[in-house]
Amino acid sequence: MKQKRNLVTHHPSLITFLHLCLSVFICGFAFSVHAQGKKERVDLLVSGGTVMTMDGARRIVADGAVAIRGDSIVAVGPRGEIEARYRGRRRINAAGRIVLPGLINGHGHAPMTLMRGIADDLALQEWLEKYIFPAEARNVNEEYVAAGARLALAEMIRSGTTTFVDMYYFEDLIARETKAAGVRGMLGETIIDFPAPDNKTVADALVYTEAFLKKWQGDAHIRAGIAPHSAYTCSVETLQSAAALARKYKSPILIHVAETKREAEVIHSKYGLTPVAHLEKIGLLGPDVLAAHCVWVDAADRAILQRHDVGCVHNPSSNMKLASGAAPVLEMLAEGVRLGIGTDGPAGSNNDLNLMEELDLAAKLQKVMRLDPRALSAEQAVEMATIGGARALHWEKEIGSLEAGKKADLILLRTDAPHAVPLYGIYSQIVYTLKASDVETVVIGGRVVMRERRLLTLNEAQVIADARRLAEKVKASLQ
Amino acid sequence: MKQKRNLVTHHPSLITFLHLCLSVFICGFAFSVHAQGKKERVDLLVSGGTVMTMDGARRIVADGAVAIRGDSIVAVGPRGEIEARYRGRRRINAAGRIVLPGLINGHGHAPMTLMRGIADDLALQEWLEKYIFPAEARNVNEEYVAAGARLALAEMIRSGTTTFVDMYYFEDLIARETKAAGVRGMLGETIIDFPAPDNKTVADALVYTEAFLKKWQGDAHIRAGIAPHSAYTCSVETLQSAAALARKYKSPILIHVAETKREAEVIHSKYGLTPVAHLEKIGLLGPDVLAAHCVWVDAADRAILQRHDVGCVHNPSSNMKLASGAAPVLEMLAEGVRLGIGTDGPAGSNNDLNLMEELDLAAKLQKVMRLDPRALSAEQAVEMATIGGARALHWEKEIGSLEAGKKADLILLRTDAPHAVPLYGIYSQIVYTLKASDVETVVIGGRVVMRERRLLTLNEAQVIADARRLAEKVKASLQ
Repeated sequence: MKQKRNLVTHHPSLITFLHLCLSVFICGFAFSVHAQGKKERVDLLVSGGTVMTMDGARRIVADGAVAIRGDSIVAVGPRGEIEARYRGRRRINAAGRIVLPGLINGHGHAPMTLMRGIADDLALQEWLEKYIFPAEARNVNEEYVAAGARLALAEMIRSGTTTFVDMYYFEDLIARETKAAGVRGMLGETIIDFPAPDNKTVADALVYTEAFLKKWQGDAHIRAGIAPHSAYTCSVETLQSAAALARKYKSPILIHVAETKREAEVIHSKYGLTPVAHLEKIGLLGPDVLAAHCVWVDAADRAILQRHDVGCVHNPSSNMKLASGAAPVLEMLAEGVRLGIGTDGPAGSNNDLNLMEELDLAAKLQKVMRLDPRALSAEQAVEMATIGGARALHWEKEIGSLEAGKKADLILLRTDAPHAVPLYGIYSQIVYTLKASDVETVVIGGRVVMRERRLLTLNEAQVIADARRLAEKVKASLQ
Repeated sequence: MKQKRNLVTHHPSLITFLHLCLSVFICGFAFSVHAQGKKERVDLLVSGGTVMTMDGARRIVADGAVAIRGDSIVAVGPRGEIEARYRGRRRINAAGRIVLPGLINGHGHAPMTLMRGIADDLALQEWLEKYIFPAEARNVNEEYVAAGARLALAEMIRSGTTTFVDMYYFEDLIARETKAAGVRGMLGETIIDFPAPDNKTVADALVYTEAFLKKWQGDAHIRAGIAPHSAYTCSVETLQSAAALARKYKSPILIHVAETKREAEVIHSKYGLTPVAHLEKIGLLGPDVLAAHCVWVDAADRAILQRHDVGCVHNPSSNMKLASGAAPVLEMLAEGVRLGIGTDGPAGSNNDLNLMEELDLAAKLQKVMRLDPRALSAEQAVEMATIGGARALHWEKEIGSLEAGKKADLILLRTDAPHAVPLYGIYSQIVYTLKASDVETVVIGGRVVMRERRLLTLNEAQVIADARRLAEKVKASLQ
């Protein structure tokens, strides 16, 4: 007792100190409870990692975070700030990862996955007439399209694509599968001047398409559109009817434009104009048009495309593999043409749906064609697959960058594989070294569709089994 | 009893049948025991899967097997036959896989992995003089080379490379790391007319190289060589001294040849000849020479290369990324030039060591440059990375195909990822759709160096940690 009393008596400062400690502790606790209480609830917090916003300032947040509520981004910023303001119902730890807007595949034909590699290294006519057309005529039905779309969706999610553009048949089924997989799509029903697998006449196809456009109006994931195949496979009347229908529903028009030299020659001999000038003349061009390829476009063509605010899509793999040529990508970017990037279909033109490879190819193709290693930077390539692609689709108000108010479409890229180490320049690493296999997690509209390489919205084993079964039928049909 | 007797009496054929069954069973059992006893023991049986032999007949065995004893292949054939003849101490089940000879990377600079992506999209001089040369001068030492080589080896094994060609400094350390990782290498110590990180003079470099060549004579994994950098960075005297040293030890000579237009111009203004003609004139060319790039070689140059039985290596990624141009690959193949394929170094020229991508690029580059989709088939591309590559290295008696008597260097490729389904043409699938991430298992000289994506001869976490630590030093050195 005496000792204790002495301690207190002789150390009054100790008591003060203990009081102070207690006060600090209580205050801290109260503040913390208060702060916790004040934290806004969000549905998903993606925390840590290098966040590449691809916003106007191309802001890169070194240790960043993205707060997501519902299908949209609430805030993007330094992790400390975001975690102080938001509490996530769910969390994804992105430490050591690159967080990038989901990739946008600007051109393709998803169900052609089922004919991937069916015929390669052939002259264009032989490839089309001996393989693709007969195989399509004998095999493309509803089951085929749905199964092919699911296989494409699995592959696209695995390689970081969150939005894709499609032109095929039975497009309503592709929309259904896309929605079910949680992916975003700008999907156009093909109109072409010969009997197609789903509609035998253009009139039938227009009826089908009108129902399709009506059905998906206002859907957050699906932008239904119409895809008159091209100026060389569609008459002026077909093209104009397709455009009129699209415009009635404010729907996108998807079309192949100036893909090959042969196409340019055919159009010139028929109409005395370049493909672009011809499409302008007949009133097809406008901000609702997405023109795939645009390889054979001269300065005058590009001026027309820009004047009508047409979106364009570069497809380096396809243009190389089918020997179409090299699009004037540098000029289009310099002139301010809305330019995205795509894979094209996987049956002969690519043969996969891997946008990570297209970035690498786009940069390398421009360099070698111009004998200039500065041509097309890695940053420009990444732009084409994100915000640039969104601009090409006229969808940039909702997708293409990580900004408050936009849809929460993002991917996490691992950076710890031997091929990904070390890391000097982040754009450079994404374009020249990272692979589809480095895509770890994919979020679309706030929904996690792949987590740590596991698909959550598709039964992958079933998708593969279905694809293999249908491919056997295709093989048999060609014998 | 009566019934039984009746059964026997009335069914004499039944007794005969039962006897027969018993006899067949006993005989079968005895034969089986006998056969088991007669089965030859091997160390490893790779069983099942589609075996692409890449032999002279390009035999593809649908449900095949490879029997391996020690470091060599004992037999290749249908699984039934091989399993009837051989019993494996260990087995790898290759069902559903493609079994391919290990890939041969014909040109590279392994330790440059540590500067992967250090500077991209720059003019050649700026890239070299502002980044590569100062960074190498300040950082390349023994620790750096060993760590960079280990990182490269990890990446190469993961992407299916079993033999690689290298030109760098401290090459003896690269040989040591290569041997330790169980990989095969044709490794050349660089000789160049300016002070290098390991040897300040050509004389010193020649002394170093002689010791290096002596040390590795007769090694099954390492072919030590000398790598005079090029005709534009080495005087005639340097080139001739290097060649003389190589020939004293029957060692390979590795050299950059006609990579850029600028190089061709410099050599022409100096010697009045093309790079190839210049090298011929000074006596450098021969079957012991491996010439990287050969982009700017005309018909006369190619005739010289063929006459001297020089091996050549095409590097599509590097030639595209550095904007060097497109090598006349089709002509070289048609003329019978020994032609392999390589990645080049990963610091600016590629930026990875992924031969699977080079196959895809090689085919696509030839097609687009010639506007001919038939140019360079998938089969030709696979050849360049296997038996063609072995021929370029003059190593085809031991590697490049799966045949009895050759070294057991093989890889297993999975075919069940969504991007790899369905499968129509096997060469096509390998070139245009399969990725490094589909390489599942790698065997080199009968030793399993990667099994189901797990590296067995390298401590991957340590390799990556070392690489990151050294890259931080490189970054600091450039500030």
